[in-house]
Amino acid sequence: MLVVMQEGATEPQIQAVIDRLVALGFAIHRSTGVVHTVLGGVGPMESFDPRDFEVMDGVKECHRIMSPYKLASRSFRPAGTVVKVGDVEIGGGKVVVMAGPCSVETPEQISCAAEIVAKAGATVIRGGAFKPRSSPYSFQGLGEEGLRLLRKAADDNGLLVVSEVMDRSQIPLVAEYADILQVGARNMQNFNLLRELGNTRKPILLKRGIAATIEELLLSAEYIMAGGNYDVILCERGIRTFESYTRNTMDISAIPIVKKLSHLPMMADPSHGTGRRDKVLPMARAAVAAGADGLIIEVHHDPDHALSDGAQSLRPEQFTLLMEQLRIIAPAVGRTI
Amino acid sequence: MLVVMQEGATEPQIQAVIDRLVALGFAIHRSTGVVHTVLGGVGPMESFDPRDFEVMDGVKECHRIMSPYKLASRSFRPAGTVVKVGDVEIGGGKVVVMAGPCSVETPEQISCAAEIVAKAGATVIRGGAFKPRSSPYSFQGLGEEGLRLLRKAADDNGLLVVSEVMDRSQIPLVAEYADILQVGARNMQNFNLLRELGNTRKPILLKRGIAATIEELLLSAEYIMAGGNYDVILCERGIRTFESYTRNTMDISAIPIVKKLSHLPMMADPSHGTGRRDKVLPMARAAVAAGADGLIIEVHHDPDHALSDGAQSLRPEQFTLLMEQLRIIAPAVGRTI
Amino acid sequence: MLVVMQEGATEPQIQAVIDRLVALGFAIHRSTGVVHTVLGGVGPMESFDPRDFEVMDGVKECHRIMSPYKLASRSFRPAGTVVKVGDVEIGGGKVVVMAGPCSVETPEQISCAAEIVAKAGATVIRGGAFKPRSSPYSFQGLGEEGLRLLRKAADDNGLLVVSEVMDRSQIPLVAEYADILQVGARNMQNFNLLRELGNTRKPILLKRGIAATIEELLLSAEYIMAGGNYDVILCERGIRTFESYTRNTMDISAIPIVKKLSHLPMMADPSHGTGRRDKVLPMARAAVAAGADGLIIEVHHDPDHALSDGAQSLRPEQFTLLMEQLRIIAPAVGRTI
Amino acid sequence: MLVVMQEGATEPQIQAVIDRLVALGFAIHRSTGVVHTVLGGVGPMESFDPRDFEVMDGVKECHRIMSPYKLASRSFRPAGTVVKVGDVEIGGGKVVVMAGPCSVETPEQISCAAEIVAKAGATVIRGGAFKPRSSPYSFQGLGEEGLRLLRKAADDNGLLVVSEVMDRSQIPLVAEYADILQVGARNMQNFNLLRELGNTRKPILLKRGIAATIEELLLSAEYIMAGGNYDVILCERGIRTFESYTRNTMDISAIPIVKKLSHLPMMADPSHGTGRRDKVLPMARAAVAAGADGLIIEVHHDPDHALSDGAQSLRPEQFTLLMEQLRIIAPAVGRTI
Repeated sequence: MLVVMQEGATEPQIQAVIDRLVALGFAIHRSTGVVHTVLGGVGPMESFDPRDFEVMDGVKECHRIMSPYKLASRSFRPAGTVVKVGDVEIGGGKVVVMAGPCSVETPEQISCAAEIVAKAGATVIRGGAFKPRSSPYSFQGLGEEGLRLLRKAADDNGLLVVSEVMDRSQIPLVAEYADILQVGARNMQNFNLLRELGNTRKPILLKRGIAATIEELLLSAEYIMAGGNYDVILCERGIRTFESYTRNTMDISAIPIVKKLSHLPMMADPSHGTGRRDKVLPMARAAVAAGADGLIIEVHHDPDHALSDGAQSLRPEQFTLLMEQLRIIAPAVGRTI
Repeated sequence: MLVVMQEGATEPQIQAVIDRLVALGFAIHRSTGVVHTVLGGVGPMESFDPRDFEVMDGVKECHRIMSPYKLASRSFRPAGTVVKVGDVEIGGGKVVVMAGPCSVETPEQISCAAEIVAKAGATVIRGGAFKPRSSPYSFQGLGEEGLRLLRKAADDNGLLVVSEVMDRSQIPLVAEYADILQVGARNMQNFNLLRELGNTRKPILLKRGIAATIEELLLSAEYIMAGGNYDVILCERGIRTFESYTRNTMDISAIPIVKKLSHLPMMADPSHGTGRRDKVLPMARAAVAAGADGLIIEVHHDPDHALSDGAQSLRPEQFTLLMEQLRIIAPAVGRTI
Repeated sequence: MLVVMQEGATEPQIQAVIDRLVALGFAIHRSTGVVHTVLGGVGPMESFDPRDFEVMDGVKECHRIMSPYKLASRSFRPAGTVVKVGDVEIGGGKVVVMAGPCSVETPEQISCAAEIVAKAGATVIRGGAFKPRSSPYSFQGLGEEGLRLLRKAADDNGLLVVSEVMDRSQIPLVAEYADILQVGARNMQNFNLLRELGNTRKPILLKRGIAATIEELLLSAEYIMAGGNYDVILCERGIRTFESYTRNTMDISAIPIVKKLSHLPMMADPSHGTGRRDKVLPMARAAVAAGADGLIIEVHHDPDHALSDGAQSLRPEQFTLLMEQLRIIAPAVGRTI
Repeated sequence: MLVVMQEGATEPQIQAVIDRLVALGFAIHRSTGVVHTVLGGVGPMESFDPRDFEVMDGVKECHRIMSPYKLASRSFRPAGTVVKVGDVEIGGGKVVVMAGPCSVETPEQISCAAEIVAKAGATVIRGGAFKPRSSPYSFQGLGEEGLRLLRKAADDNGLLVVSEVMDRSQIPLVAEYADILQVGARNMQNFNLLRELGNTRKPILLKRGIAATIEELLLSAEYIMAGGNYDVILCERGIRTFESYTRNTMDISAIPIVKKLSHLPMMADPSHGTGRRDKVLPMARAAVAAGADGLIIEVHHDPDHALSDGAQSLRPEQFTLLMEQLRIIAPAVGRTI
């Protein structure tokens, strides 16, 4: 903890900061410069709010030295984490591709999707059974029936299953059918949900919230890991910016940044990241070129009649083409597809 | 629904859009300009995704004509809604002030807070029993015991109670003690929670998410109203922008915008909106000057020892001063405090 | 300068940072904590780039201690600056209102505008002769003839003149007619222009860029002041955010923040800040309630036929009403209008 | 032009909009729906402000049908533009790499840089002679002497030269030495500069402003093209968002979007786009994978002693490695390096 005092801060102001640091259990080091006094504090923990000091009289600014997350930080496992699910390794030498429709709609639709993505080289099928929709009047998902259909389609095609849990109460049900539990962007800071997921033993795919900083993403991973579940896979899926041509702005730079700050695998979701089918291929290629450990992509056998997110779902032939392009790119980062 | 075709769109491309509109049940009107063809569609409902058309070949852009929310729109109740809770009217001639600590901590603390805010003129006490904290290592609230203490402190001082529900499962418990149920910014798009709140008969204080547009805020209100609960109070509490001096950027303009688009009362939370005690007074004054129907403000008898958000909690004498300033400003907008 | 080393940084990495600090003339203080080593550097100046250290091996983060601006900081003149132009004092007890049309269009238009705003209580008339327009096909201003008309209208009504310089080469011309030279938001970081304005002896109204942090605004003021011109007036006029209902999001909190960090007067421009006439009154009131030293507002006698920015120009009767509302609000912050 | 009236708009309100459209020369088509009346206007030009209509009574929203830019739009040259400078073609089958130091510092430095980048495969050298620096106390460039050194180093190594003009008055000087004139992000909306560049016959490298939408970037290109200079090369270099780990957030999706909306070549600047050396390689790879026509990259033979932007300058061996990686990636998008 470093507290920088303002130019001209008075001795009583400095003393008040010292007293407060001491009360919190910090050992203090004071450094008096020509212009600014700086107080360094070393303590047993850093779960305090730096703003408490920033609003004190005479304080210019305050910096936390230790990261607020520990288990999620790279220094916790410098070699990096490989999450193993069945035969699939996320974070290893192979870029893992998860693909499938936005929502499970019918037995035919999901079975058809599974065939397409398996054939093109995906190893995990995605599909929503519970859909968070911003309008109360939109299709909300098939529920358990959707999960059952998804599982069957996966098994028939030798795929694993990833599906979203929207709520703490849905965990047991989704965990029964899915191999990987997904936390959507809107739930990235649903702390009750995160805490509960820490108690499961299924890998968690945690998507970055549209307004979440990278530090906040890692803090949310920390919530899950603090409960004992270390199999967390992170995922960039677009942040909200002033640019409105695409629904979100996909932050490709988050991929190398997270890889540096954390040992956890980092994937990318170009479908939600752009919201437009015609931008999914370039952004998927960019993500792999930037070092992503995997992709999660929406594919539908007939996107024009999809019940949700058809506009961002690839047609089968586009997905096949993408996989071919990725096979060219992956070696540039020492990977295969 | 308006679909604008690109310059040079071909007749088959135009026809494909028309076919799709017809299949969705729209009656079509075609207008062929010198450069662009525009297709207008009138349908029984507008719960479709405009992006489905935007990604079609030959389409330049697509505009929804009808607002995606209906019950929350101003045209539903042009005269505006006044939410009545006991003797308090939110959305009427009086600016309602809700105040109290971030978290309920001890019996003495909450009772002291209640006395302070009641004496200065607040009519509702706020206080969290369940706290969404971004770090798993921070204080998480007292739970039901906190609610009990809050209720007692309120009753002893003739105040109403507002408190946050973090999760669908907490609704019955919080509803037992609080007069108004608060949905925090992080839960603004927790649709399962919103839907359930539509079935309660307590007023809901719905805070704007830090990355939520005004339209999304109104869509979240629509979720609650669609369930039959029309007593929704909206609240601006800061959005995330590139400016990092304050935690959030409080969007004061959202106040007059929401008042124009919707009939629902619109409040402001300058404590979370700024995150710094020294900015709360100016922003609270600004909110009332801009036409806010109420304020929710963090006040603590001893902010330096608060267990959460002390940095943004007003000291008692600051709150008293603020109330005096607001009494001067309110008449400029035809209100009283 | 504070450099925080990563957990596990090696001794050679630490030494490399020390060597570089020493080479730049810093006196070093090293503090070795349990987890992190922190290096404090005190130097004769701080015009270096902290990123140079942040990308060094083993470095976690780097913080500048001294503000990058000096002349613009509050500590340079703790009592605050009052800019005097004729009888008008900006930054004193009176909130100064500058008003007038976006562009000077005709002799009748500007003379009519001058009468309206003078009568309602404004003391400075605004009006553009050179217009920065985002489309090359839009009206670009009357040039010198516009300045002449503006000056005459001002003189006839006992007003001062503020007008924009778009380019270094326009300074002598605009300075001949105007009392205050305005730098528009798009030019806030036109450093050649700023440097040249440092050599004039006219007060400068410096508007915040739509993507400028408050620190960058103060650095731009520093450019002007470094040349010897200390009469800089700052102005908030909206920043770019994800919310698209208004053209910009007016950052009212910038007003109290700038007043704390700097001694310079801080105004607000609710016309550009919102871009919509119907939001100008609430935001103008909010700015004064938050402590603004002045307002600059677009007023047109017939906005429906204005050649530029008619949509954000007040009608005469709206401006008169606003001035009445402001007279009620100003005393709440110890000011008059 | 499409004007959507509010639900319940009165006949006089509708008539007022029609009258105004007619006065502007629009032919009107009225479509009266069950809920909303929509007015379509076809006119000879669209250089009006849609907000003029949006603030009229009874208006819900207003959409421009025609793009505000014409010469820059894809439909103006559907096959795409290839800018030819000497032997180099930008926008063709080869991804063009421009590289070199941020600033020209000494004869040795720039000559060394030229050798390095030429050997690794770059065809254009970059280097600033006039530097826009946010602090008045930073190194501001060598001026004409820098241009002379840059030209010589280029000629000695068979390279072309790109260098920045900060101001209208610098055009003749920079044009004397450089093959391509660069407009920096801060000047993207310096309309006087853009207009003047329309009169030169040198290609212009136009960088996107940090808060500029893609539409605004294309409008700025239109300014240059309207003057008769069609050789405009666009460049993404990072936008400002809430994420502060990197200086800017590089918007990779802007690459495919611009390629669709415009016929102009689109490059990427991963050095400014990230501000950190360790993120330049991944982002440069991502840009090429997403379809960029070229890259502009900062390379310095000794970044630790660079006078500006050393933190984002690649070391020689990093640049060489990057070129090798790009050679693997380019075929995935049908290009070579």
